[in-house]
Amino acid sequence: MASPGAETKKPGNHNDFVQLCNPHVAAMKEDVLYHFSLSTSTHDFPTMFGDVKFVCVGGSPSRMKAFIKYVAVELGLDHPGAEYPDICEGTDRYAMFKVGPVLSVSHGMGIPSIAIMLHELIKLLYHARCSGVTLIRIGTSGGIGVEPGSVVITRQAVDGCFKQEFEQIVLGKRVVRNTHLDDWLVQELVRCSADLGEFPTVVGNTMCTLDFYEGQGRLDGALCSYAEKDKQEYLRAAYEAGIRNIEMESSVFAAMCNACGLRAAVVCVTLLNRLEGDQISSPHEVLVEYQQRPQRLVGHFIKKCLAAA
Amino acid sequence: MASPGAETKKPGNHNDFVQLCNPHVAAMKEDVLYHFSLSTSTHDFPTMFGDVKFVCVGGSPSRMKAFIKYVAVELGLDHPGAEYPDICEGTDRYAMFKVGPVLSVSHGMGIPSIAIMLHELIKLLYHARCSGVTLIRIGTSGGIGVEPGSVVITRQAVDGCFKQEFEQIVLGKRVVRNTHLDDWLVQELVRCSADLGEFPTVVGNTMCTLDFYEGQGRLDGALCSYAEKDKQEYLRAAYEAGIRNIEMESSVFAAMCNACGLRAAVVCVTLLNRLEGDQISSPHEVLVEYQQRPQRLVGHFIKKCLAAA
Repeated sequence: MASPGAETKKPGNHNDFVQLCNPHVAAMKEDVLYHFSLSTSTHDFPTMFGDVKFVCVGGSPSRMKAFIKYVAVELGLDHPGAEYPDICEGTDRYAMFKVGPVLSVSHGMGIPSIAIMLHELIKLLYHARCSGVTLIRIGTSGGIGVEPGSVVITRQAVDGCFKQEFEQIVLGKRVVRNTHLDDWLVQELVRCSADLGEFPTVVGNTMCTLDFYEGQGRLDGALCSYAEKDKQEYLRAAYEAGIRNIEMESSVFAAMCNACGLRAAVVCVTLLNRLEGDQISSPHEVLVEYQQRPQRLVGHFIKKCLAAA
Repeated sequence: MASPGAETKKPGNHNDFVQLCNPHVAAMKEDVLYHFSLSTSTHDFPTMFGDVKFVCVGGSPSRMKAFIKYVAVELGLDHPGAEYPDICEGTDRYAMFKVGPVLSVSHGMGIPSIAIMLHELIKLLYHARCSGVTLIRIGTSGGIGVEPGSVVITRQAVDGCFKQEFEQIVLGKRVVRNTHLDDWLVQELVRCSADLGEFPTVVGNTMCTLDFYEGQGRLDGALCSYAEKDKQEYLRAAYEAGIRNIEMESSVFAAMCNACGLRAAVVCVTLLNRLEGDQISSPHEVLVEYQQRPQRLVGHFIKKCLAAA
C-alpha cells in the first residue's frame, strides 16, 4: 500500500539534522518566533531544545499539558512536585511543554493555525540543531463508518474533494504540495496499538477541511443549503474513497513535514460516527477518555523507540 | 464608494432578530455548541444573552478579557471587585466574556478557527432571540504602506489574489460568497476615530490569507521559494489594489455575517509595515499599546451608540 516514492526512515539517525526549505533564514542575525514569544537573541535554542527527538502536537493547550505529564510518568522522568511550565508563557497563541526528548505543542484549530505553529516549530528545531526528529499530531476527529472512540492512523491526508494534495496561494499563485506521510511510522503505530489492545485502531485516509460545519457536510451550522440526502451521499462517497475520519489540520501538517524531510504521522480518535449524526453529544467523561487514546498510543510508541535506541 | 447592493442599517432596530441560513436548526430538540461547551438543554440562552447588542471578536483570549474590562469601565458598568468569568470555562477552544449589552469572544487564528466560532456564535444569538446586533472584529495585522500602529477599518475583504470573495468547498463543490461589509458602520467608525484623535486611522481593503508566512509573501518562514524582489512586487501590487493590511480572518467573517444579515466591521491595528520587513520585532510594550487601539476605537463607538439610543 506504499505510495510511489514513499521513503521510510527509522528513528535514531543522529546525522539527520532538521533542515529548512528557505535559504533566507541562515542569513538572519536574529529570528523572532513571534507566535511562540521566543527569539534566537533572547533564548538559547540548542540548550533548551537540542535533545528533542519527538514532537507531539494537538489542538488544545490543556490536552497538550496533560500529554506531557502522561509521557513524563511513562518514561520514568516524572518526580514528586515536578512541574511542566509553558515555554511560550509570553503569549496565549500557543502552549509548549517539554520533558526529556519529548516536546508537546498546541496548535489551535484549522490549517492556518497549525501552519503558523509549524513554520515556527521547524525553525526552532533548525536553530536548536536537532536531528532524527519525529512529529506526530494527536487529535480528535469525526469518524466515517467507524465506531466512536476508534483511533485512525492516517495513510493519506486528502482535501474536501478527496484529492491527496494541499493547495495554497503563494504570491497570488496556486501552489500544490504532496501530503505523503511516513509508511514505516504508520505500521509501527499499528503494532503499538496491537501491543496495547485497549481500543479499536484502523489505518485509513483522513479528510482535512477548512470548515467544521458546511465544509464537513454538517446540517447543524448557522449556514446550510443542502439536505440530509446530499450529506449522506457525500459522506458515503468519502467512505468509498477510503476516508475513515475528518479533521482540520492533517493536510498542511503532512505537506510541511514532507517538504522539510521530517518523519510525521497523524493519530486521531473519532468522537462520533458522522453517518449517524452531526452533534458531539456524548457525556463529557466519555469524550475525555476517547481523547486520551491517541496519547496512550503515542506514549507507548515513544517508550518503545527509546527502549530500542 | 458604496458597493452595489450595499445595505446600511443603523443600530437599534429591535425587530431585527438574528436569523440563520439553515432551516434544519429550528427542528432540533437540543443544540450542543460543542466548541463553546454550551447547550440549549443545559443553559438558558435568552436569559444569558438576550440583551446582547454588540459582539466584539478577536484572536487572543487574554486580549478579549482585557477588552471586556475596558468596556465595562467605559460604559460605567464596572464596580469594585467586579469579575468577568469565562462563559466558556468548560473548554479551552474559545473564551467568552459579557458585560451589559457587550459580548467579547476569542476566535483563535485563521479562517477555520473563526468560522467554527461564528457558526456557534450566530446560533447562540439566534437561540437567545437577540435583535439589532452589530459584530466587530478587533485584531492585529501587517500593514502595507501605512505607519506601524495605524488602525485600518476594512472597506472590502479580499483574498490572496485580491478578489473580493470568499471561496469554500461544500460537499466537494466550490461555493463563493460575497464579503461585503457595512458602509454605514465604516463611516461611523471613521468619525469615532476623529472624535478620539489618538492614532492614525485609514479606510482600506484588507487581504485575508490562509497562511502567515508564504501566504503573505514573507521571507522568514520554514519554507520560502521566492526572492525579496518577488515579494516586493506582490506587496506593491496589493497596495495598488487598495489593500492597506493583511490578516487571516476578515473574509469568512464578512461572508458569514453578510449571509446571516448581521451588520459587521473589521478594525485592525498594523504591527509593522510589510514593505519594510517581515519580522514583528517592536518592543513588547509598543505592541501592547498598538493592540489597545482597536479596543479604544470600538469602545468609543459602543458608548456613542448607547448614548444615542
